Amino acid sequence: MTFRETLQCIVENVEGGIGAVIMGYDGIPIDEYIRGDAPYDMQLLAVEYATVLKEVKRTIDILKTGEMEEMSITTERTRILVRAVTEDFFIFLALDRQGNYGKGRYLLKRDVPKMQESLR
Amino acid sequence: MTFRETLQCIVENVEGGIGAVIMGYDGIPIDEYIRGDAPYDMQLLAVEYATVLKEVKRTIDILKTGEMEEMSITTERTRILVRAVTEDFFIFLALDRQGNYGKGRYLLKRDVPKMQESLR
Repeated sequence: MTFRETLQCIVENVEGGIGAVIMGYDGIPIDEYIRGDAPYDMQLLAVEYATVLKEVKRTIDILKTGEMEEMSITTERTRILVRAVTEDFFIFLALDRQGNYGKGRYLLKRDVPKMQESLR
Repeated sequence: MTFRETLQCIVENVEGGIGAVIMGYDGIPIDEYIRGDAPYDMQLLAVEYATVLKEVKRTIDILKTGEMEEMSITTERTRILVRAVTEDFFIFLALDRQGNYGKGRYLLKRDVPKMQESLR
């Protein structure tokens, strides 16, 4: 399975899935799958959240509470889920506000090991 | 109920609760409740995450996806839960890695309206 197929499988199997991107902390994507009717500029969303993640990583390094595993941010209109893949890359999933948050978390957790394999 | 009592009630009613702080985005706390045996410097944790939250707020403003409601960050050793109380203040809850994440989210959601009342 290519990265794109894995991302597509995640987005299409979670209620409210908008898009998913596998991306470096430097904001450069490896691959993405975005639904045709996505209500947001997903590239912009992912790049902006990459900046947040860099800040999160910096904070976690200071606090010495171990590596980052997962982050989620809910706003009035979206739910963002992020899961670390390697030290340099993460997967970013955007859902509608009413999307299935628990299912999204489960799918990311399930698919991260295969992505890690591919990035080795 | 004072802020401290509300915070104590949250921390003591969630498995793995370490401490909770109600705090401004400028990093200045209103009140806090921290378990005596907390394995981390909770003040430092809260202040560092306030910096992350400022970055999150900035990002959400750019993206125009509505106000921030909730954030969670999981590392190898902690789970951090944050919920917006007003435009200026948030509540910050730290749990052990194995703490009851779902219960923590529920308690924050339940208690935020009374905190909003008190801050008016």
